[in-house]
Amino acid sequence: TIDAGRLWDSLHETAAFGACEGGGINRLTLTDDDKRVRDWFRRTVEALGCTVTIDEVGNMFARRPGRRDDLLPIAIGSHLDTQPTGGKFDGILGVLAGVEILRTFHDTGYVTNAPIEIINWTNEEGTRFAPAMLCSGVFAGVFDPEFAWSRTDRDGIRFDAALEGIGYKGSAKAGDHRLGAVFELHIEQGPILEAEEVQIGVVTGVQGARWYDLRLNGNTGHTGATPMRLRRNALVGASQVVLAVDGIAGEFGPDAVASVGRLDVSPNSRNVVPGEVFLTVDLRHPDDGVLEAMARAFEGRLAGIRERYGLEMDLTPIWKNPAVRFASELVDCVQAGADQAGFSHRRMVSGAGHDAAYLARVAPTTMIFVPCLGGISHNVAESTTREECAAGAQVLLNAVIAHDNT
Amino acid sequence: TIDAGRLWDSLHETAAFGACEGGGINRLTLTDDDKRVRDWFRRTVEALGCTVTIDEVGNMFARRPGRRDDLLPIAIGSHLDTQPTGGKFDGILGVLAGVEILRTFHDTGYVTNAPIEIINWTNEEGTRFAPAMLCSGVFAGVFDPEFAWSRTDRDGIRFDAALEGIGYKGSAKAGDHRLGAVFELHIEQGPILEAEEVQIGVVTGVQGARWYDLRLNGNTGHTGATPMRLRRNALVGASQVVLAVDGIAGEFGPDAVASVGRLDVSPNSRNVVPGEVFLTVDLRHPDDGVLEAMARAFEGRLAGIRERYGLEMDLTPIWKNPAVRFASELVDCVQAGADQAGFSHRRMVSGAGHDAAYLARVAPTTMIFVPCLGGISHNVAESTTREECAAGAQVLLNAVIAHDNT
Ligand SMILES: NC(=O)NCCC(=O)O
Ligand SMILES: NC(=O)NCCC(=O)O
Repeated sequence: TIDAGRLWDSLHETAAFGACEGGGINRLTLTDDDKRVRDWFRRTVEALGCTVTIDEVGNMFARRPGRRDDLLPIAIGSHLDTQPTGGKFDGILGVLAGVEILRTFHDTGYVTNAPIEIINWTNEEGTRFAPAMLCSGVFAGVFDPEFAWSRTDRDGIRFDAALEGIGYKGSAKAGDHRLGAVFELHIEQGPILEAEEVQIGVVTGVQGARWYDLRLNGNTGHTGATPMRLRRNALVGASQVVLAVDGIAGEFGPDAVASVGRLDVSPNSRNVVPGEVFLTVDLRHPDDGVLEAMARAFEGRLAGIRERYGLEMDLTPIWKNPAVRFASELVDCVQAGADQAGFSHRRMVSGAGHDAAYLARVAPTTMIFVPCLGGISHNVAESTTREECAAGAQVLLNAVIAHDNT
Repeated sequence: TIDAGRLWDSLHETAAFGACEGGGINRLTLTDDDKRVRDWFRRTVEALGCTVTIDEVGNMFARRPGRRDDLLPIAIGSHLDTQPTGGKFDGILGVLAGVEILRTFHDTGYVTNAPIEIINWTNEEGTRFAPAMLCSGVFAGVFDPEFAWSRTDRDGIRFDAALEGIGYKGSAKAGDHRLGAVFELHIEQGPILEAEEVQIGVVTGVQGARWYDLRLNGNTGHTGATPMRLRRNALVGASQVVLAVDGIAGEFGPDAVASVGRLDVSPNSRNVVPGEVFLTVDLRHPDDGVLEAMARAFEGRLAGIRERYGLEMDLTPIWKNPAVRFASELVDCVQAGADQAGFSHRRMVSGAGHDAAYLARVAPTTMIFVPCLGGISHNVAESTTREECAAGAQVLLNAVIAHDNT
């Protein structure tokens, strides 16, 4: 059994690296604070008898030998970077639960059949260097290492310079070794488990997502002096787009979600009819066919709004991520692990993207969710209890042992 | 007859004070550039034999004696301050046409019966110090001088400190003298004259306006992980508000205008369901009764949206300006002046607020509009031709002489 207090203490010990106001963490990838938590991770796992390998994009692999070195390793991993106003759990729980499992094995002298790898993936959040899940993506062959190295932050600093700057550019080629199974424990980042008072989410996959940028152009004008019939109001058109996007989710069943998260008005002045709006669209569904239909419905709706309001529209698709189905044998291990520990559980599809979504392309993969208060994440108010963290780590341990014994 | 070339040259000479990229002017009120154009104005009118009085809020009065000093002065005025990305005509044309009329009188030795005052009103734009039309408002008794002095800009600089800083805090009490008639020449700031190919707008009044601030609060959430049924999306509610406001205009006839000019989303991130929106509402109509009905329709519509989306809403009325009817004898002088010069004209209500709207409370007042390209103002692209400016100044001169002779 894992030690709830010890896991909780580790979460709080490492939360000091980049601690920010409100009890959260500001630990952008490849900053000094990221170096400090990486150093802590390396020190801690080496003291537990692991060998640490770092690859060319900074992914860290802490390997504990198993009884049989001919077996592919079982990976437990997530990320230690955070949003600028991030919480103490998003990503971090998935790595530190791995450390807690190492400690449990160490204390009890338990030796697995397969080697165990605890992994810290670089730049999951994508805030400093876009896109998100960059280096699990490199590991899985979704991106080239050169692409990752060339990413720049707002200050024009390149990813590779920042990586060398903190001393974490390793010599291992990314994706140089295969993984036999991948388990990622994560907070849900949504309100479902809390609303249904369920302790464990048995994650069967990750829904597909389409992201778009949309720019609408009309005419500015004085709000007092421009008659309605002579207007081409970009914000009125944009409002129709927001409602169309929201409405599309309703048309494709309870699993569809569709959102405009960002909307910028120009010139954004009280007495000027808006001439330009920039907005972003995010469509998701667990079924790629349905997602494709949602995308087509959205594009059709746009055409109608463009005509009705005489606006120019410039639509740019910027992300197209297919739905992922996790490996059913691992999903079963997770469910059995929850039953074994006596935790309530439900099967669910991850609403958010995760490192596991890319890793599923190259290895049998699954995830475990624990509830988070109000579904809030990417926020210093992100909150998960000691017991919830421990429950997730226990199910992770049970699932890993179950898989190791098959 | 006024000299089209000389007026045009003055417009371009003074456009150097605060000239900004794109051919416009950035001359916020009470800045060094405002001081430079004020100094130019004083020098120029003094050379034409005027006495300049400055009041306690910086309004400048250039007085040319008439034959009979027992008559109240005929005022010609507007403002020399601009928006941060303002054009060369908004406000400025109304003051410089006055200077051109002084020059015409001077060159021809014409002496009016009543004294003539060319006036530069301080802070019409209201960008640096809110609200707009501040010092014509003080002159008309709408605001106390103390209120004007206490206004602060973004950097915390008080109006009175800025006024003293450029040496334009005069000793005359604001509103210390009465005006016999007020004429303001202005660009239309709307598209009607251009669309109808009419040269002169004979302005019969200013429509009423209501301004509101509205804050909508819902819940943030991850766009991927938050099911539609658990959302309280502030941007979806705000979009309904934008459409309700736009729709209300349509319900109250072709003279009604209704707009949301500003809208800010929070946190405004691609994969976060918007938790908060701030927006501004601007309702206008030439008839106060209709405007009141529009305001009631708007507030009723809000209540429906609040309930439907479970949002919190905080509505703050911030400006309530009644409709203004100009003095019919002056309106007739303007129309006769346009006929006399052979310009096409149409009666119209000003869509925008102007210094004249406040002055109409204390003196017979009217306005003259000239077309502006595409109805564009508050923009460096603001454009009115040499001939259009000259036509407006000629009608102004004709109307002033006609009124002076009644
Ligand atoms: N977990 C997470 O927030 N990933 C970022 C990409 C997404 O919006 O799904
Ligand atoms: N002329 C002008 O833009 N005035 C500002 C107040 C308004 O929006 O009417």
